Amino acid sequence: MQGTMLYGPRDIRFEDRPEPTITKSTDAIIRLSATCICGSDLWPYRGIQPIAQPTPMGHEYCGIVEDVGREVKNIKPGQFVVGSFATSDNTCVICKDGYQSSCVHREFMSTAQAPLLRVPLADGTLVATSDLPPKELIPSLLATSDVLGTGWFAAYAANVKPGSKVAVVGDGAVGLLAVLSAKQMGAERIIAMSRHASRQKLAREFGATDIVTERGDQGVARIRELTNGIGADSVLECVGTQESTIQAINSTRPGGYIGYLGVPHGVSLDGEKLFFAHVHLHGGPAPVRRYLPKLIELVWDGKIKPGKVFDLTLPLAQVAEGYRAMDERRAIKTLLRP
Amino acid sequence: MQGTMLYGPRDIRFEDRPEPTITKSTDAIIRLSATCICGSDLWPYRGIQPIAQPTPMGHEYCGIVEDVGREVKNIKPGQFVVGSFATSDNTCVICKDGYQSSCVHREFMSTAQAPLLRVPLADGTLVATSDLPPKELIPSLLATSDVLGTGWFAAYAANVKPGSKVAVVGDGAVGLLAVLSAKQMGAERIIAMSRHASRQKLAREFGATDIVTERGDQGVARIRELTNGIGADSVLECVGTQESTIQAINSTRPGGYIGYLGVPHGVSLDGEKLFFAHVHLHGGPAPVRRYLPKLIELVWDGKIKPGKVFDLTLPLAQVAEGYRAMDERRAIKTLLRP
Repeated sequence: MQGTMLYGPRDIRFEDRPEPTITKSTDAIIRLSATCICGSDLWPYRGIQPIAQPTPMGHEYCGIVEDVGREVKNIKPGQFVVGSFATSDNTCVICKDGYQSSCVHREFMSTAQAPLLRVPLADGTLVATSDLPPKELIPSLLATSDVLGTGWFAAYAANVKPGSKVAVVGDGAVGLLAVLSAKQMGAERIIAMSRHASRQKLAREFGATDIVTERGDQGVARIRELTNGIGADSVLECVGTQESTIQAINSTRPGGYIGYLGVPHGVSLDGEKLFFAHVHLHGGPAPVRRYLPKLIELVWDGKIKPGKVFDLTLPLAQVAEGYRAMDERRAIKTLLRP
Repeated sequence: MQGTMLYGPRDIRFEDRPEPTITKSTDAIIRLSATCICGSDLWPYRGIQPIAQPTPMGHEYCGIVEDVGREVKNIKPGQFVVGSFATSDNTCVICKDGYQSSCVHREFMSTAQAPLLRVPLADGTLVATSDLPPKELIPSLLATSDVLGTGWFAAYAANVKPGSKVAVVGDGAVGLLAVLSAKQMGAERIIAMSRHASRQKLAREFGATDIVTERGDQGVARIRELTNGIGADSVLECVGTQESTIQAINSTRPGGYIGYLGVPHGVSLDGEKLFFAHVHLHGGPAPVRRYLPKLIELVWDGKIKPGKVFDLTLPLAQVAEGYRAMDERRAIKTLLRP
């Protein structure tokens, strides 16, 4: 088969790769219905997170099970499944507590921009749908695999509740789906920070009540204006830079909550500043597996359409163009069809 | 009157000071029954937090109301009162949310190591007892003013619940009362990190089930051993140094909670490390006013004896010796009698 490799900054190649096989008795092999490019893939793509050697790419996936190892009990060939970017046994004490993305047996998926994928710990990582999905649901089901689950965790980590006043920092696909998640959790006011017309439009469609185009201190001032002068109850940090993190802290009310989901790059928090900000801080790799059954159900029942974040669909073989489009912000998120 | 001033590193003077008077109609003047020295006073005392000019000291207090401004409604002359180190109107939206130490009208108290004290926003800052307390309760009532309230907030911020496995970093007075607070909140296991026999003894008396004397990676390894290999559910960081903060993060299970109460000095948190630690982080200046009614009741009813952290009592005039004793760790905490 052919799969996606990153050779260095902006050097994506679609090339011959070995077909995955069952290597452990808890594995499954999936033939992907769709895969996609993640905002976090852009860090190594841009060379900000350097790679030591040519590296396979991709960690978002859904598709049909081809084969399973002999210890796999719940997942069967022929089923349509979605899995998280982090594998989990779903039985250890950390999984039981809902933090499957820190499972004691966790591995991070990294070869999903390909037609076939080996998924370790299949029983604890994958969730099967009741039937094969209609084609039009595939993008939204794919979104549950990471980008929606991550936005959902942002809202959860930031304690979004009915009536909350929420600010979302970042208008990438995760930020947009954080808006959708906050809406689902009953937020009263959802302020999206965005300067891009197409993203603002989607943010409004997903439930944003206000758009703030200012950044830095001016952005903070605007958010305070919209929240009785004190800051938002919940701020969802969906970027991961120093600037966005400071933006989030300064936009939160004392006693308020920050959920941070952008993998931090070069972020350093001043302890004293954080102390006097009086905020709650929680984040990390989203435990998508915790939310998958619920998110799949919401998609299946047509209650949410997170697949709208895919504004570019390409054949998998054109994966390099998919990266370019996201890098240049021509696309919010690229769906790839094997 | 004479009061306490810090002139520079280790230069405490007890000298003539103007008697406080009502300057705003919301003020009260209190004649102190007792005051004390806080661990946080040691930062400027040691010169780690430099002062620009001679500075009055003290922010923990209880005593008898002498006079009140004309707008004060709830507090009356002759009452025994305890107040927080942070003033609060107790009516603003932040106070209503329980974060009185970030009240929009907050001032930090700083002249309490003296016989008389002006307390701004008396109605929202002070809590009166039902009667004048017996003399033996004074140390424990004084403790509610900051050190117990702060330890209590540590346990609250770290989500301590019945059955929790808790680790406390720091064996100062706040750390010891964090142990007491965790015990009151039903923690099943309370691991105190301490190398000092007298402090270990008090920690056990307050409810510690285990003592860990190791620090750094060895301390983390010991805590993991005591918590099924994964780390504590709740870690209470009661020091405020880089080392203690890292200790706290590394001792917490994924999905666990850190309450941090030591005012951070030179602490810098690596965003990526925090992200993958998967912890909840909350702290800041303790909203003591939120807890005062409950804490005073627990003391009044003899259910807790936080005053035991005062292992040195001196006349106020000997305040300089009180600082020396704490600086040299000869005393856990010094109570001063005006």
